[in-house]
Amino acid sequence: MGVHRCRMCAADSVINMRQHRLALCEVHFVEWVEKLSASFIKKHRMFEPDDRILVAVSGGKDSLSLWRILLKLGFQADGLYMDLGVDAGCSYSKNSCEYAEKFAQSIFPEAKLHVLDVAGIYGKTVPEMASRRKGGKKKFCSVCGLVKRHEMNRIARELGYTVIATGHNLDDEAAVLFGNVLHWEAEYLVRQSPVLPADGLGLVKRAKPLARFYERETAAYAIINNIEYMQEECPFSVGATSLRLKEVLNSMENGSPGTKLNFYFSFLRAKKNSLLLVRERPELRSCEKCGQATGAPGLCAFCRLLEPAGVHHSFS
Amino acid sequence: MGVHRCRMCAADSVINMRQHRLALCEVHFVEWVEKLSASFIKKHRMFEPDDRILVAVSGGKDSLSLWRILLKLGFQADGLYMDLGVDAGCSYSKNSCEYAEKFAQSIFPEAKLHVLDVAGIYGKTVPEMASRRKGGKKKFCSVCGLVKRHEMNRIARELGYTVIATGHNLDDEAAVLFGNVLHWEAEYLVRQSPVLPADGLGLVKRAKPLARFYERETAAYAIINNIEYMQEECPFSVGATSLRLKEVLNSMENGSPGTKLNFYFSFLRAKKNSLLLVRERPELRSCEKCGQATGAPGLCAFCRLLEPAGVHHSFS
Repeated sequence: MGVHRCRMCAADSVINMRQHRLALCEVHFVEWVEKLSASFIKKHRMFEPDDRILVAVSGGKDSLSLWRILLKLGFQADGLYMDLGVDAGCSYSKNSCEYAEKFAQSIFPEAKLHVLDVAGIYGKTVPEMASRRKGGKKKFCSVCGLVKRHEMNRIARELGYTVIATGHNLDDEAAVLFGNVLHWEAEYLVRQSPVLPADGLGLVKRAKPLARFYERETAAYAIINNIEYMQEECPFSVGATSLRLKEVLNSMENGSPGTKLNFYFSFLRAKKNSLLLVRERPELRSCEKCGQATGAPGLCAFCRLLEPAGVHHSFS
Repeated sequence: MGVHRCRMCAADSVINMRQHRLALCEVHFVEWVEKLSASFIKKHRMFEPDDRILVAVSGGKDSLSLWRILLKLGFQADGLYMDLGVDAGCSYSKNSCEYAEKFAQSIFPEAKLHVLDVAGIYGKTVPEMASRRKGGKKKFCSVCGLVKRHEMNRIARELGYTVIATGHNLDDEAAVLFGNVLHWEAEYLVRQSPVLPADGLGLVKRAKPLARFYERETAAYAIINNIEYMQEECPFSVGATSLRLKEVLNSMENGSPGTKLNFYFSFLRAKKNSLLLVRERPELRSCEKCGQATGAPGLCAFCRLLEPAGVHHSFS
């Protein structure tokens, strides 16, 4: 590591960010993260002071750091923990929930944490929902994502929140972008953005305020601020494509610091300069069952997932 | 390797292409390469039977295989070897030239090989030209590329060739695409294509007929056909960005065969479906000195490179 001194006050640094050529002490690093968050939020018009923000809280470093930052910046931000019923022999969901509750009680007692019990509402855990689909573990992540997006949006609408905030960091966004680029997924490339506006059809506005921070930076922010968080990865993520893409990007980042930052921000610039053609999305309708927007006729993907076995596979 | 049998005749295979789930014997592999080349050439309208093709020949496996394929398919194809004056203690250019000449004499004696001596014409080898630029080895590759593109085009025009063919394989194209994507180079992304039409301003049509073959496949084609070729990489390419990008793609390809093929062809499809917005190129003019098209005022980049030292750095 060597003897890096804080650029602001010459004290011993706690972090040296090669991609920014910037070393900072504890105090100035926390200040830097919060200032940069504020300007990123402003630049992308994520929130206004009167917005009611619902933070998707997983119990991990990113979402808890995000919640802390938003509250420190003076925003109205409540948390939503979704208990997906992942046990896998290590009580994953239960332990994650405890980190989220502990944070809410000890660090910002005035903040509200909503806890959603998926199995309690729908009679099935997410692993049980996913087990009906072919594809095993790989399919699990896509079913889990579908459930989380659907429920997050439903709760936000029902409770009157105006924006949903998620803790995706730069490593997450760069890996998603990399995956989309490997297959040139037009629809996904066009929609990948730090902020997605409400669509007037019931999809609540979504924002990713941490998308410009490396995972290492959000971890440092959590540790410095004594946030206890769930350190294990989800047991179902072992072997996930996103983790392999992250490994590749990490090896490139090691050889050339700033690779991820450049990759993601040059993409955002190219989109802003309209390199990518925004085409009309397929027309959206309201799902017959839950009322949320969907491109499919009849039921949305979430409600199809919950159909009794046999029904959604019968084609007549 | 195991016991793969040729899918066409059940003889022992010489190559197993995991990305195609296809193993072939010598005879059927050569047939497969030539048939696929013919259909790729036709699909992208690279050449007509009356075209006079100038093949850029480096003495390596790709360009010599390309030349052989074009001649076997009945096209009129002559070669151009550009002696760039790379010695670097291993007589690189001299040895490469010998492979090109040997091929021309022994395999297709009716084919014509033009040899261009850059230092003989311009008084400087490419390493000498590059040494005037800052940036060391990294700069060398860009200067070398500039010189080759300029001279290839000049010779094609002077000798009345209608298309230039280069031996870029899928590994080359995927690495270039990867580099362009890492920085979202709009201009380069829009122009990266297996075929670039003549622009009416003196830029000759260019085609890359091998862009759908893996490097391993062009090497196998050369070896099976007893083509002796230069196996060493250019000594200046050590540490080149393109080689690092190739390593990354290779590791991904190993984990998931077909990654490169998918990456490159989904990009071509996305472009065809106009995901990428083709913007107007900057207006081109004729270079005051050589007459070739350039976006710069006054001299083109090649002619600026050849200006006497001191002159092209003086701004008044």
